[in-house]
Amino acid sequence: MSDNRVTAAMLAIGDELLSGRTKDKNIGHLATILTASGIELCEVRIVPDAEHEIVAALNTLRSRYDYVFTSGGIGPTHDDITADAIAKAFSLPCEHDFAAMKLLGESYAARGVEFNEARQRMARMPRGAKHIENRVSVAPGFIVENVHVMAGVPSVFEAMVDALLPTLRTGTKLLSVTIPCPTGEGKIGAPLAEIQKAHPDTVIGSYPFVDENQKGNTNLVVRSRDPDKLRAAMDDVKAMLAAIHGHN
Amino acid sequence: MSDNRVTAAMLAIGDELLSGRTKDKNIGHLATILTASGIELCEVRIVPDAEHEIVAALNTLRSRYDYVFTSGGIGPTHDDITADAIAKAFSLPCEHDFAAMKLLGESYAARGVEFNEARQRMARMPRGAKHIENRVSVAPGFIVENVHVMAGVPSVFEAMVDALLPTLRTGTKLLSVTIPCPTGEGKIGAPLAEIQKAHPDTVIGSYPFVDENQKGNTNLVVRSRDPDKLRAAMDDVKAMLAAIHGHN
Repeated sequence: MSDNRVTAAMLAIGDELLSGRTKDKNIGHLATILTASGIELCEVRIVPDAEHEIVAALNTLRSRYDYVFTSGGIGPTHDDITADAIAKAFSLPCEHDFAAMKLLGESYAARGVEFNEARQRMARMPRGAKHIENRVSVAPGFIVENVHVMAGVPSVFEAMVDALLPTLRTGTKLLSVTIPCPTGEGKIGAPLAEIQKAHPDTVIGSYPFVDENQKGNTNLVVRSRDPDKLRAAMDDVKAMLAAIHGHN
Repeated sequence: MSDNRVTAAMLAIGDELLSGRTKDKNIGHLATILTASGIELCEVRIVPDAEHEIVAALNTLRSRYDYVFTSGGIGPTHDDITADAIAKAFSLPCEHDFAAMKLLGESYAARGVEFNEARQRMARMPRGAKHIENRVSVAPGFIVENVHVMAGVPSVFEAMVDALLPTLRTGTKLLSVTIPCPTGEGKIGAPLAEIQKAHPDTVIGSYPFVDENQKGNTNLVVRSRDPDKLRAAMDDVKAMLAAIHGHN
């Protein structure tokens, strides 16, 4: 199997995610978008608004994966410290970016709103960073090397991901097929393990859930980058389920 | 200020969280419950069903925080490898636990269901582990030292957290108050930063959102373990908002 993998990690930043005040929506969104694009999300971390925590996590993740995507902490208030933390991780100065100052200045002027010190904070980024367009609320995200820094508000995060995606290198897409199993996992555990062993270039996941009638169900998911190997494993899973449950 | 902190991390385990197939609900739930109980969730990691990734993350987190809570990977199928990974992290044998075998055996016998090899997998845990009761589907979670291993299915995860919570040491609760601000963050950034500086024993967060009329709003959240210091900072935030917006 050709192994044209592109790997990624996400770093979600914010005390509000760890206190439970905000239930994160960005992780699941990014995971879905990356998978569909052929980029493999390999790890996620959530850290508080604490510079040393952000710097340490970022430096680990950016050395380990092709891409890092961050969410949160790039707004105008004192608790928005992501730009400073990213600059520190790269040993770059964090400063008001000329193009971002112009972009924001013109936007606020057009709306008759003062471009004050707090709003100017949103133009701060590590020296030399490239912008990520923000079609929702103007203030751009930014890119330093393989690190992509985006907002935490979901509508803005999603707009930035959309703007970013066409610029990313992608790998061979991981294909997947879901096969419903009308029982819990207990009956199928042993034969499913045999099928996994017989198909080492696939990854077979088993996801139990309780349906609306409080009855145990399972989704079996076969994943592979090779469509032929995917089909062969899928056929074996279906044959196993038919043998156990007496139907196709 | 007395600093009676109890810290925690969460390790969510599962390929399905990283592919976007499953949108995690357990992180937000645990965060809310821990905060309400006086335990500070300091970090979250999501890792795939890969033993070396689970072991590495677990060993980092368990040495760093008072408690670690894991979700996922303790079912009956081949992709449920959490028990083995936890045992490996602690250099313990992973084996069928006598009490868990008895519990599950009796439960399946009562339902007339075969207690087969796959179902017996759910009784495997590191030698000497204590059980976490599962009132939803019997198969217990388990505890090794400061690590608490729970299921990924949200209803089971939540039942296990409920069973576990009364047994945990808790710290002084972090108090918090939310003050609504009827505009975005741009106007308040500078004065809010001054208030944060004047109240170093509080943590003030600013969380912008777009309301149902597409209008920018912000929630200002003041947090402290000391009720007097919380109130003093809150009063300053309210006075600042009244000065800017002309009302209380």
